[in-house]
Amino acid sequence: TPGLSRAQVNHGVREVLLCKDFAGKIGLRVQPISKGIFVSFVQTGSPAAMGGLRFGDQVLQINGENVAGYSMEKVHEILKKTETNSIHLAVRDRPFERTITLHKDSVGHIGFQFKDGTVSSLVKDSSAARNGLLTDHRMLEINGQNVVGLKDKEITKMIEAAGNVVTLTIMPKFLYEHMMRHMSTSLVKKLMDHSVPDL
Amino acid sequence: TPGLSRAQVNHGVREVLLCKDFAGKIGLRVQPISKGIFVSFVQTGSPAAMGGLRFGDQVLQINGENVAGYSMEKVHEILKKTETNSIHLAVRDRPFERTITLHKDSVGHIGFQFKDGTVSSLVKDSSAARNGLLTDHRMLEINGQNVVGLKDKEITKMIEAAGNVVTLTIMPKFLYEHMMRHMSTSLVKKLMDHSVPDL
Repeated sequence: TPGLSRAQVNHGVREVLLCKDFAGKIGLRVQPISKGIFVSFVQTGSPAAMGGLRFGDQVLQINGENVAGYSMEKVHEILKKTETNSIHLAVRDRPFERTITLHKDSVGHIGFQFKDGTVSSLVKDSSAARNGLLTDHRMLEINGQNVVGLKDKEITKMIEAAGNVVTLTIMPKFLYEHMMRHMSTSLVKKLMDHSVPDL
Repeated sequence: TPGLSRAQVNHGVREVLLCKDFAGKIGLRVQPISKGIFVSFVQTGSPAAMGGLRFGDQVLQINGENVAGYSMEKVHEILKKTETNSIHLAVRDRPFERTITLHKDSVGHIGFQFKDGTVSSLVKDSSAARNGLLTDHRMLEINGQNVVGLKDKEITKMIEAAGNVVTLTIMPKFLYEHMMRHMSTSLVKKLMDHSVPDL
């Protein structure tokens, strides 16, 4: 399914080439976790969004410089100081994430409850239970579309509107909370990229 | 490389068929985490080891019964009561784990320190730093060979004895500690399967 293809987490390393926008911005914020630098915010319509960066991606290098162990401020400063037209990033695909594919039953249910985007309980013998969905995990994408910053009602609507096959991209809640530690809730709600990624 | 093939984590679901040994045992212990049932111990030479079960595998079904939400005691009881010769398990490949492949430098280093099997720091511009190895992560396998229960000295020897390419299988320390919560240290040290898996 297209949703599954869009959601696929392969943990591989790719190169991303970005240019700044007219205001000199790329629309990216990062958070250090365990000496790694992780993408915690991708602004809708920004060069970062256009370049395919996603929440949870790990930035390994900026213009050939290894950023392991750097602070958030240092990484933001490096990005600010780079040239406008060729920012080369080496990026590892979302190391803390994995996908799980569920199937709707005859009444359209995939079999779990959630609160604040986080799986809170499983319905016995449902698709979620059979496939090993776990509680204490944050939903980050539904069929490859980012849902960070969306309300539970909006997420429910997306799941209802999806076809019979729903692929969730999840991350342990514990790590999600680290990711969001310094992030403004209103910024995420208003400006996080929620577009449907290209195949 | 063979090590990389052996280590590969695909997060897929497979079926495992086990028979009990002469003493009626299969050599498997589990730990519930977030309503999932995870393999926390595989005894060396046991039916579970022969069947290819690994530390961190998630057991979804036992003879068609979904085990999501079950207690450790309930799962052990079900396994005890099953028939001797056909225990069908549906198993998801190590959901909390991923691999990272490192290359030795000219003096044989891959670039990190560890304590109690857990990555504690990264060497600047080393293979570990370039590839995005993270601190606060527990090493579970080296080139596909389980190291849970081994001393740091033994792990160091395994890394030294490996070729130029070393694939680590890792899990966040936080989840590892959950996995080992009810596990006897001496049991793991003495009896955990550390064999080199078949390709």
